[in-house]
Order: sequence, then C-alpha cells, then structure tokens
Amino acid sequence: MPFDPSRALADLRAIADLTGGRDTGGARRVCWTDEWVKARAYVQAELAATGAQIDRDEAGNVWAYLRGSGDGMVIVGSHVDSVPNGGWLDGVLGIAGALEVLRATSEAGTPPCTVAFVDFADEEGARFARSLFGSSAVSGFLVPEELADLRDRDGQRLEDVLRGYDVEISEVLKAGSRLDGAVAYLELHIEQGPVLESEGLAVGTVVGTVGVERLRAHFSGQAAHAGSTPIRQRRDTFLAAARTALELREIALRHDGVCTVGGATSTPGVVTAVPGRTEMLVDQRHIDADTLTAMKAEFVAAAERFAAEEGCTVELEQIWRIEPIPFDPGLIEIARSAVREVTGTDRTLPSGPLHDAAEVARTGVPTVMVFSSSTNGISHAKEEDTPIEHLELALQAYGLAADRVIHGAGTA
Amino acid sequence: MPFDPSRALADLRAIADLTGGRDTGGARRVCWTDEWVKARAYVQAELAATGAQIDRDEAGNVWAYLRGSGDGMVIVGSHVDSVPNGGWLDGVLGIAGALEVLRATSEAGTPPCTVAFVDFADEEGARFARSLFGSSAVSGFLVPEELADLRDRDGQRLEDVLRGYDVEISEVLKAGSRLDGAVAYLELHIEQGPVLESEGLAVGTVVGTVGVERLRAHFSGQAAHAGSTPIRQRRDTFLAAARTALELREIALRHDGVCTVGGATSTPGVVTAVPGRTEMLVDQRHIDADTLTAMKAEFVAAAERFAAEEGCTVELEQIWRIEPIPFDPGLIEIARSAVREVTGTDRTLPSGPLHDAAEVARTGVPTVMVFSSSTNGISHAKEEDTPIEHLELALQAYGLAADRVIHGAGTA
Repeated sequence: MPFDPSRALADLRAIADLTGGRDTGGARRVCWTDEWVKARAYVQAELAATGAQIDRDEAGNVWAYLRGSGDGMVIVGSHVDSVPNGGWLDGVLGIAGALEVLRATSEAGTPPCTVAFVDFADEEGARFARSLFGSSAVSGFLVPEELADLRDRDGQRLEDVLRGYDVEISEVLKAGSRLDGAVAYLELHIEQGPVLESEGLAVGTVVGTVGVERLRAHFSGQAAHAGSTPIRQRRDTFLAAARTALELREIALRHDGVCTVGGATSTPGVVTAVPGRTEMLVDQRHIDADTLTAMKAEFVAAAERFAAEEGCTVELEQIWRIEPIPFDPGLIEIARSAVREVTGTDRTLPSGPLHDAAEVARTGVPTVMVFSSSTNGISHAKEEDTPIEHLELALQAYGLAADRVIHGAGTA
Repeated sequence: MPFDPSRALADLRAIADLTGGRDTGGARRVCWTDEWVKARAYVQAELAATGAQIDRDEAGNVWAYLRGSGDGMVIVGSHVDSVPNGGWLDGVLGIAGALEVLRATSEAGTPPCTVAFVDFADEEGARFARSLFGSSAVSGFLVPEELADLRDRDGQRLEDVLRGYDVEISEVLKAGSRLDGAVAYLELHIEQGPVLESEGLAVGTVVGTVGVERLRAHFSGQAAHAGSTPIRQRRDTFLAAARTALELREIALRHDGVCTVGGATSTPGVVTAVPGRTEMLVDQRHIDADTLTAMKAEFVAAAERFAAEEGCTVELEQIWRIEPIPFDPGLIEIARSAVREVTGTDRTLPSGPLHDAAEVARTGVPTVMVFSSSTNGISHAKEEDTPIEHLELALQAYGLAADRVIHGAGTA
C-alpha cells in the first residue's frame, strides 16, 4: 500500500486521544514527563509493526531503521513533545508523516537505501527553557556543561531529571554518530504562521530557517515624580523604548523581515513615576545573513538615537543569536515538485521558528521541510489547527518527496 | 526672638541624625514604625518647650496649641513620616517650619488668635499604600471601611497595626472636629520637582494641587509567533500602547499639563511572541478641571484610534481621580508678598504631588503652601536635597506669611 495520509491522520487522532489535543484542553506531551513517554510508546508500537529496528540514542532520541539494499540513509522525523496545553499538530504531524513513510516503505519491500525514522527529544524545551535538545545533541552544537544545572520551575536540575529517563547529560553528544551515512533529512510541520492560509494555500516548501538576533535593550534615564516633573524636563525611558519599538517595525518592513518587541519592563513601574529604567526585549529575524546584520545595525542606531533624544542612554545586551540556516537546493527542488504535483501550487517560504531540521542542516546533511497551513497562524495553544484537507495534501506531498528521495531522485 | 530659620535647620539636622537623612542612607520614618515614633518624640519635646498644649487626635495626628487672646485658629503643619530610604526634607521641612512658628509666636507673648501645630499621621502611605491618612481623616474624605483590611507586605492588617499605636480605625473621622474654628492652614514643603531650580528660584507660592485622572488601559490583540507572523498580519498591543504613550506626551504639551505612562505589562511577555495583551498605566494632571477633562477625552480618543489602527481593542479602567484643589486667593496673596519681600522673586506654581494641605483645603478652610526648590527635582530618595540658602529663604518667607496671617492681615 502506498503512502496513505488517512493512516497518518488516524495516528494523530490516536495520539490526541491519549495525551491531549484540540478537544481535550490541549496537548500534554511536555518532554521528560509521563505523558510524553505515553505518546512515544504509541509511536514505537506503530513503528514496531513496520518491522523497523527501534532503539534510543544517548540523547533520548528514538530511532527506527528499515535497512536498505544499498548505501546511504534517508532520515524522516520530527518530535512528539509539546508545550504545556499545546496544539494537536506541532511536532506530531511530522511524526505521523514520518511513521507513514516507514509503513509505506516497508510495505513496498526492501528500500534501495536505509530509511531512518527519528523522534527527537525535547524540541520544545518547555520544562528547562532549552529548545532543540535532542537534535542539537545529534548536531554537536549542544554544550552539556551549559545545561546540566538548568532547573525547572520546581527547582529540579536537568541532569537529575534526565537521569530518570536514562539520559546521562555528559554522554549526549555521542548521539552524533546517528548521522553517519545520512544523505537527506525530511521533516513535515505545520507552518505556525499565517502566510500560507492568508494566500489560500495548503502546503509550502521551506527554504531554510531564518537567522535570529535577540537582544535586551536597557534604557536608563531618570525616575521622577509624575506630578511635579514638567514634560520637557523628563528623561523618560518608556518613551525612548516606545519610539524604538515603532522604528523596529519600520526596519522589518524595509527589509521584508520581522522584528518583535515582546514587552518592556519599567522601573519603578508605578503610575506616579516617570520610568527611570526600561528593559525591552527585541527579536529580529531574516533568512538572509547580510540583511539581518543590516537590520540589527539599524536597530542599534535607532535605540541610541531615540535614547539620546529623550535624554537617556541605552545599553544593548545580546541574549542569543543564530545564523540563517539554508536548506539543500536539490531537496528543495524535489519538495517543490512534489508539492506542485499534489496541490497545483508552488510556494516557498522561510521558517521563522526554528526546528530540529535546522540542527540537522547545520551538520551539512542535506535537509528540507514541508509546511502545511496553520489556521489563523496559531500554534503552541490548544486552538492550533489546520483544515483536514490541507493536512491530507501536506502529508501526500511530504510522502511523495520522501519516496523520491529514498529512490535516489537527486540525492546525489 | 523672631522666626529664626537656623533653629528650624537645627531641628531638621537633629531629626536626620536620629532617624536617617542624606548622609545615613535616607530617612527611615515610615509611619506606624518605631523610628517614626522616635522622630515624633523629638518634635513633641521641642513643642513642649514652647509651652504649647500637646495632644493627639483619633487619627493619630499630633496637635499642639498656643491659645490666643481672640477667636479663630491658624494651623501650621506637615508630616514627620517618610517613605523608606526617603529624603531628609520631605515632610519634616514643613514640620520644622511649623515648629519654629510656634516657638517664635510663643516667645512674642500671647498671640491674637490660637495658633495650632499639626503633625499629620501617614501622609506617605508607605506601609499600606494609602496616602494622606491623617489629613483625610480630619477632612472627612477617608472611608474607614475601605482601609481596615488593607495589608502591608508582611500581611498585617491596617486595623491591627494601627491599634498598636492606639488608633481605632472606626473612630478616626472624629478627628474632623480639630478644624472647628480654623481660619487658615499654612504648609511649607519642598517642591519635589525641578521647576523652581530650573528657573534659578529658591521659593514659590503654591496656588493649589492639580487634579489627577489615573487609568489603566487594557489593549487586546492577538498573541502570535515572533518568527512566523508577518508584520502586516500582526495585532500587536505593545505597538498600540507605544503610539498611545507618545501621543499622551503631545496631549500634555498642548495643554501645559503632565501625562505619564508609568510602564506597560505585556502578555505573554516573552521575546518569541507578539504581545497579545498589554496593560498600560496612565496618569494625567492639570490644575484646571476643564482642561483636565479635555486631556482625558483626548487620551481616550487616541487609545481607541491607535488600538483600531493596530487591529486591537482597548478598554480603559479608571483607577482613581481627584479634582484640582485650588488654594485660597487671599492666603495666596499674603504668601506671594512674603516670598517677594524675602527673595525678591514672585513665582506661583501648582503642586503636582498631593499634600495634607489639599485635604484641609477640601474642607473649605483657607489654605496655602510655600515651596522651596528641590535639587534636581529629586524626592522620595536619599539624594533629596535643597541648597541651605534656599531652605533659609523658604523658611523665612513661610514664617513671615504665617506671622501676617496670625496677626490678621487678611484672614477675613
């Protein structure tokens, strides 16, 4: 039986019934919890039925292998874990698609190359605020010493919690050997944004993940009495931050990227005082590294100019950054063809969110992703949804692309 | 001996030595604490030395009376209590000035009318976040039932704490009888703002306290992923709030008033999400009631317009409001003459902060205040200061005005 979207949809519904979905208050598959283990157990039982060999690597990622007649390995995968009260599709749509790739491949006999399935551990980082755990262990970009002492809300250490799941933080980089021989990685995911839906499209091909510059801007002025300080004698940090936030939108529009102010915290933060200090969280993203660099420079210049004009100063603290990660041109072409054949449309787009695919791509393994639309662009919430016909089309296109890659059409 | 600023300055230094001042980490005279009692005890000992009769009213205000030969009563006063780590002048400058009025009056023999000194309890509201406690008990605007259950940071109830200081919350309004026969109230205070200093002035006459409109604006939009949501598809509440904050400044400048955004709190408030909700604290002040009404209307219109332009909605919640409280024209003229004679300058200004004087004025007792300059406009901080020569001039002008009022020059 060829790749069948309806079997993947049945898996999605079964996982939602087991561990939370749309109609049950949201997904409860937070990594390193019992419900995550329960969802994984369902997936592993289905994998076992395909005849695949299943095992776990040192980082807690689950792998399943259909050995091929020839060299090379094509990996399909995603993650089972969710944020608390998460959506019924984020992560598990890709798991259901990859599982169906293994089913269809197995049913067709011995594949020409090895087909590997992976369920990456802790993509979301919901418990310890460190996302892409399993995939960054595989890619080698994870630094175990930085993670061991992370604590969850209850004060439990990551190292101790992971030990309860037979993961030894000092050993996780050994999982990198799992990529040996890999010639391609394909991942299906919901867009988690409104682009496809707003254009009336069901499916798109992802050309890479955007680069991110994440900074905290610290504006310093002078706290002063709200009643007794004339407007022209104020050094108001909230207004400096407000002007910078509005300019960040202009920067994003000029460069066709995105800039986001997540919020601002002012001190003293009471209604009777001009804010003497304001901290503002800033996130900038673009698929092109040079453009992202320009966007950041324009932000820095704007923050300094508005601070000065308001009689304030600003210090910028880099919280995090990542380069844009382009996907593989050959795989992108295969995916676009598959999407075009299945849907009659051909939209490419960068991914704003990061994904396990980005970690794999960083290692040099050719990578591509396929996105389904997201209703209202909502994700990480129980309202997360996609029209069933869009899910079917996305699964079909993903299955077709995977089949072509497995059969060597362009894996070079 | 006539009114002598140097004796008042000696009192200020003594109180700072006892309970904290500029060089000792700030004032520690938070109301309903031992250090507040200690500062009051110093003042009462000095009052006793003038021969005044001292007692306390039902609200914990300390009164001292020099009985006069004729009818009527002129009240001089302020408050001893401070905010935590407060300044060495806020409140106690007026206490030292009023104390020196009693000294000078007593030394001159029996006054023509009764001269009353008052140290109002808990002007700052530092412990229970309810300012003007003692003076609003006297004015009758305090509502005991609203206060009894207020709790401090340690969870202690106001009613219980006050009982430890022999104040029964249900009885405090009886203190209102203390204003019987009052023909004038005069209070000296630091400006707590930068207006006098910026004009090179030492002293000014206060024409009233500004009216205040205090609101919380709740902007509602749509939380969305910072990476995957294109700028033009966002409903960003932080940007709606930012535009409103900037317009509030224009409103203030147009009307020669003040508008302050104390800060904003966004939800989810993380760098990876467009803020779906933002709450913003807004304070507007003006000395003219009609102008304040117009300023508020312009704020409401701006908030609604910017919310709509950003695809958001806004709800406005009134937190608190007070009408402008004008001081007495006759007393203002007396104070202006005294200031002019002592300093050679004549600046009138409204008070942005509220004061005990405003509560007294609300009862219809003719009231006026005199301000000294404030260095850098800073108050409620240990850095609070005023040049000694400005304090001397302010005390001198205040003493002169009080003497003229006591001697009937225009108390009608």
